Amino acid sequence: MEALRKAPVAVFGNFDKERFLQEIYPLRKPALLKGIPLGTCTSKWTVDYLSTTGGSQEVKVHVASVPQMDFINKNFIYRTLPFDVFVKRAAETVHVEYFISEDEKYYLRSLGVDTRKDIADIRKQFPTLAEDINIPEFFGKDQFFSSVFRISSPGLQLWTHYDVMDNLLIQVRGRKRVVLFSPRDAPFLYLTGDKSEVLDLDTPDLEKYPQFAKAQGYECQLDPALWFHNTIAKDFGVGVNVFWKQLPADCYDKTDIYGNKDPVAASRAMQILDRALKTLDELPDEYRDFYARRMVLRIQSKSYSNHK
Amino acid sequence: MEALRKAPVAVFGNFDKERFLQEIYPLRKPALLKGIPLGTCTSKWTVDYLSTTGGSQEVKVHVASVPQMDFINKNFIYRTLPFDVFVKRAAETVHVEYFISEDEKYYLRSLGVDTRKDIADIRKQFPTLAEDINIPEFFGKDQFFSSVFRISSPGLQLWTHYDVMDNLLIQVRGRKRVVLFSPRDAPFLYLTGDKSEVLDLDTPDLEKYPQFAKAQGYECQLDPALWFHNTIAKDFGVGVNVFWKQLPADCYDKTDIYGNKDPVAASRAMQILDRALKTLDELPDEYRDFYARRMVLRIQSKSYSNHK
Repeated sequence: MEALRKAPVAVFGNFDKERFLQEIYPLRKPALLKGIPLGTCTSKWTVDYLSTTGGSQEVKVHVASVPQMDFINKNFIYRTLPFDVFVKRAAETVHVEYFISEDEKYYLRSLGVDTRKDIADIRKQFPTLAEDINIPEFFGKDQFFSSVFRISSPGLQLWTHYDVMDNLLIQVRGRKRVVLFSPRDAPFLYLTGDKSEVLDLDTPDLEKYPQFAKAQGYECQLDPALWFHNTIAKDFGVGVNVFWKQLPADCYDKTDIYGNKDPVAASRAMQILDRALKTLDELPDEYRDFYARRMVLRIQSKSYSNHK
Repeated sequence: MEALRKAPVAVFGNFDKERFLQEIYPLRKPALLKGIPLGTCTSKWTVDYLSTTGGSQEVKVHVASVPQMDFINKNFIYRTLPFDVFVKRAAETVHVEYFISEDEKYYLRSLGVDTRKDIADIRKQFPTLAEDINIPEFFGKDQFFSSVFRISSPGLQLWTHYDVMDNLLIQVRGRKRVVLFSPRDAPFLYLTGDKSEVLDLDTPDLEKYPQFAKAQGYECQLDPALWFHNTIAKDFGVGVNVFWKQLPADCYDKTDIYGNKDPVAASRAMQILDRALKTLDELPDEYRDFYARRMVLRIQSKSYSNHK
């Protein structure tokens, strides 16, 4: 079993907003940002403090009996717990009270107050905790989209996926390994929608996923938009994930509270393409194949960035 | 200068309609058919006989000062000549009367009587000559599309292109080299529509057309639909090219008298695709490129024949 090729993500320290915007952001690549003053959260956010201060409001969490959560085959369930109870459970390895098994894993991706309409914003859903964290303002206030509170059991691994907005993953507590893949590696990731079927990055089944051998992983904590990422919580982990709108606001789907829907123009283009492919289906195999290949050449020459 | 990789086309002899339909046709590959009884044309069709019997009706011909005709950059002109005059001119290497130069090359691709509405059919446009040739009836009468009379000056080379219908190129007189390329090689041919920009197959400019080095040529006389082909008349040549409809008749464009328009479903799919790409253009470069690549993956998984 071959391992995934991995390269380190570039690390940046000693920068301010200006240098970030001029030198780091334009690279459009993952970057690990060190030395950003995050406020008192780094010392305050213990399990006890989080459960006491965060309160007992109900949160919806992912629960799985295995550490590798799989969205495509849904090997997890959603359960609701008071926040304080959840934090304690996520921090312990063996549970006295549990839903599936005594070593089940938990994952919180915080939601808005009205989970169908509101965007996750730690300042609204956890106002007291939000006071402890200083979110760097690298982007304009009007570009802000969401700040997602993420808390996970030790060992929890999240499926590889991409987001459509740029974001900063602020890991406050616990080590988290993040592996990223370039948007260009999409052909090697066996995608279903925005998610990769390849769950086990470290010992991938290359007989089932031969193309995955061509993928190039990068390790770090900051995810630019469209880069595929996969995270493992090495320890019980607490973080805040801030997303902002890189494109003009009207490019995004207004009903998208998670920030994971493709930009309006992209999903429209995809729907139109499906109509084109349905039309091709009227032709027999040999012809359908030929014109499908011609369509690919057309896309490559018209819409790829660096096609010569 | 590297030469084009070429493989021979499979040769078949001693077959009848049944064996052709069962063993040769289903291969969907170029095949050189030998030993088909063509009738008296093989001995009768001399320059004198053709000009006397074919008559002095006007024909529209391609005229170029160079042997490599280029449809993309249109290095030829169309001129009208009486058929008997044309035949004599095409058979001679140096002309006394000419349009451009004394060694200009001629090419006739016969048209219908009403050149805008009628399909080329040697039986209608050259009924007397048609009596001399026995066109093999490998296909149903209702599948017949056209029979095109092709006459060319020695040395004339026609640009590489594909046709959408299966066809039999019956070379009655003069040697003709035909080089074919699989539909799968389309990415290496630098297409503009159905035509390749690479004119000089034998000493291609690989600095300008690097991908062409990957193309695999095949040499022969029979062109299945969608295979790209390029012909050189080694001698003054006379042939009849019979096309038939492999797909149900309503798959083809009804206004297509040349049989070179893509099937209706294919051109509709291409138009729809262009709308999708126009929609993608609303997005900035990085996003457009990413979603263009996702569209390619979608096409490959939905519409390619052998995509696993």
